[in-house]
Amino acid sequence: MTALAHAALDQLTELLGSRCLTDAESAARYGVDWTKVWAPAPCAVVLPETAEEVQQIVEIANEHGLPLVPSGGRTGLSAAAVAADGELVVAFDRMNKILDFNEYDRAVTVQPGVVTQQLQEFAEQQGLFYPVDFASTGSSQIGGNINTNAGGIKVIRYGMTRDWISGLKVVTGRGDLLDLNKGLIKNATGYDLRHLFIGSEGTLGFVVEATVRLTRAPRDLTALVLGAPGFREVMKVLHAFQKDIDLTAFEFFSDKAMGHVLQHGVAAPFDTECPFYCLLEFEQLSEQVGERAMEIFEHCVEQGWVLDGVMSQSLGQLRQLWQLRERISESIAPHTPYKNDISVTISKVPDFVEDVDKVVQDAYPDFEIVWFGHIGDGNMHLNILKPADLAKEEFFQRCGEVSKWVFEIVARYNGSISAEHGVGMTKKPYLGYSRSEEDIDAMKAIKAVFDPNNIMNPGKLFDV
Amino acid sequence: MTALAHAALDQLTELLGSRCLTDAESAARYGVDWTKVWAPAPCAVVLPETAEEVQQIVEIANEHGLPLVPSGGRTGLSAAAVAADGELVVAFDRMNKILDFNEYDRAVTVQPGVVTQQLQEFAEQQGLFYPVDFASTGSSQIGGNINTNAGGIKVIRYGMTRDWISGLKVVTGRGDLLDLNKGLIKNATGYDLRHLFIGSEGTLGFVVEATVRLTRAPRDLTALVLGAPGFREVMKVLHAFQKDIDLTAFEFFSDKAMGHVLQHGVAAPFDTECPFYCLLEFEQLSEQVGERAMEIFEHCVEQGWVLDGVMSQSLGQLRQLWQLRERISESIAPHTPYKNDISVTISKVPDFVEDVDKVVQDAYPDFEIVWFGHIGDGNMHLNILKPADLAKEEFFQRCGEVSKWVFEIVARYNGSISAEHGVGMTKKPYLGYSRSEEDIDAMKAIKAVFDPNNIMNPGKLFDV
Repeated sequence: MTALAHAALDQLTELLGSRCLTDAESAARYGVDWTKVWAPAPCAVVLPETAEEVQQIVEIANEHGLPLVPSGGRTGLSAAAVAADGELVVAFDRMNKILDFNEYDRAVTVQPGVVTQQLQEFAEQQGLFYPVDFASTGSSQIGGNINTNAGGIKVIRYGMTRDWISGLKVVTGRGDLLDLNKGLIKNATGYDLRHLFIGSEGTLGFVVEATVRLTRAPRDLTALVLGAPGFREVMKVLHAFQKDIDLTAFEFFSDKAMGHVLQHGVAAPFDTECPFYCLLEFEQLSEQVGERAMEIFEHCVEQGWVLDGVMSQSLGQLRQLWQLRERISESIAPHTPYKNDISVTISKVPDFVEDVDKVVQDAYPDFEIVWFGHIGDGNMHLNILKPADLAKEEFFQRCGEVSKWVFEIVARYNGSISAEHGVGMTKKPYLGYSRSEEDIDAMKAIKAVFDPNNIMNPGKLFDV
Repeated sequence: MTALAHAALDQLTELLGSRCLTDAESAARYGVDWTKVWAPAPCAVVLPETAEEVQQIVEIANEHGLPLVPSGGRTGLSAAAVAADGELVVAFDRMNKILDFNEYDRAVTVQPGVVTQQLQEFAEQQGLFYPVDFASTGSSQIGGNINTNAGGIKVIRYGMTRDWISGLKVVTGRGDLLDLNKGLIKNATGYDLRHLFIGSEGTLGFVVEATVRLTRAPRDLTALVLGAPGFREVMKVLHAFQKDIDLTAFEFFSDKAMGHVLQHGVAAPFDTECPFYCLLEFEQLSEQVGERAMEIFEHCVEQGWVLDGVMSQSLGQLRQLWQLRERISESIAPHTPYKNDISVTISKVPDFVEDVDKVVQDAYPDFEIVWFGHIGDGNMHLNILKPADLAKEEFFQRCGEVSKWVFEIVARYNGSISAEHGVGMTKKPYLGYSRSEEDIDAMKAIKAVFDPNNIMNPGKLFDV
């Protein structure tokens, strides 16, 4: 640790007492996310309890040039919340209170350390619903969700985290406390800085409070799992349903994904084996809706777009069908998957998948590719599985080469190299495949506006 | 005209030929919006046809320090698109083409000069729907809608313009062409600059192309007009319906507004006179939904929240009920209304309206106040009518004083001094009532990033 860091830590200890942690265990616990590529090496961990304390921490950091890394639920998949280089970790675990709720506004004001599931359960207790839902809701925190603009499995109906944040308080790299949009629905008073901070990965400032909108809970959710002969047919099925029915989800997975999840102990939806599967969900708000869904299903079968299918008749069946999609990740985990989280506009998905498949299979015929994802949003998770006999290091090195080819195709299709996982450190070298040089220059200049000393999560997203 | 402007005009004429207009009639036509407070005095008007031409215009403007004002449908209500000080007007009327549509993406790519109604009709032809709807759709242009983040009457269900723009091409004040978000639904690759440009009133750059999402058209729309004894009861009605029914609109208007619109020739919905009225609308997707609406209506009557009401039984009746709300503006137009477009969070609306009413009536008992607006979003239009015997100048001067008091109350309630009309020149002196000094400093620094020579709509929003 440098002399400067020592001086800063003295001040931080004076400010926070036992909430400034320098032990190795805390460093290892708070300094990482789910990526596990970089080893955690923070100089210390602080646990502020108020926005004022966050401001004071930023002030001390500015004084000493000490880089700060925010830490939420540590479930990130892009190493945006990893402190690998002597940074001070600012962990929001102690700022975990629900501050306010108003039933007329249908809005809840929370501290950033509130866990997603805690918010979902609070909403349920009020007879309402927080609809942004994804695998890590049990430990991810609202502050982190905002920093990555988390998406998940219900985006087709409910949008991203961005769409639910009506107010945001942030402490910028200058130490200013900005109170952005104040929970308003309509507010046309200049640049909406709220949206600039959402998805900025903690590089401009840290979220210290958020006002989150809630909505009515979905009713009588019903799922269909359908098997299709090809990807183009999956798109036709999406189109046919979307015309008439408000879908709450439209997920897809390949036959390989289905194979893994069945081996993992989930029950098959039907006997017919198909190259592709989709899971679609909707609210069966009346009998007519259910009947219409059956008509569209039958039309899809007649057209040859669907080979087989099943519709849930109960909440139990609904949950069982969702297992087919939700348990894919854990079913392939033993194969050390190399994950890419990419998106293109929906209409381009079939050509895009074909192009990527060809490139990867041509170069690495020994690699198994497992596709699944949120196809209703054009978001695909491309998983490459490690052959059992290949060393982990060599596998990841070869996957790195594959990534470049994949991202070249992404760029050709005007897509995104990170649909919902963020950039952090893992995608930083590839940012130019999705953002232009002028874009990146503008982002750097905007960072300088809010964080002139580059202390807010430096080295993430881009290097300044 | 200055020598510099002359030199710039020579270059512009060379570039655009007869699409560089210097006649007085064009200046008067293109240099104003609906506010009519400032007299138009541009040095000239240019009509680009391509993004490249816009870039060349910006280049010439930078070279000569010539300020530019964007001009769309000229329906703005904040003088954001007024050229009152020798600026060059860049009018987008010739960039009015629909460029692309994809039924799988349910997205349409348009030039900025496409008129809102043209987009709505195009969507309808594709069996789809563009849901952002407001009074000036017949002449407002998409580029202008994006610049003010237009809202309107269906925000409670469909959100603002912001929520429908999946891709945005802008020419910045540096002359860079930025291609933002590219029509993607999910894209987590750094700061979402798209949202920074939406609502920026042309002060950072000009929109040259937009990708707009469409959705399924609403079915079997049904409206209820209800009379309530007070504002608190209106809120209870909103709450009761919103719990169970997905509202597509929840508008309100006062007894005074009802009086004007009835005098204007619109038929009364029922005989009972009430202090407040609300109009709510929903899709009657099944008989159950209609029955549930009737049950809630009856519950509201039993509770004393509703004094009388009517539900539309046909499309004709639906349209007739909407007249009660939609024709208020024209019914009060002869009284030279002074308009304020303000918002607070929904739960604060009753107290807020009470406070504003008291202040205005105490100071100016001779002024008639007409309230109406989009109460489901907390957005109220406060109209002060000119007494017949008061001169227009004195009336506006006294209303200016009233505005300050109103905005002080807005600030106390953490509200917005401009909910959906923007800031432009009319609200510029009052921006500090809704945005902090640090906010405004950050906005100015961001403007400098994209527009270092301050040529993009200078003097609007704030002075740099």
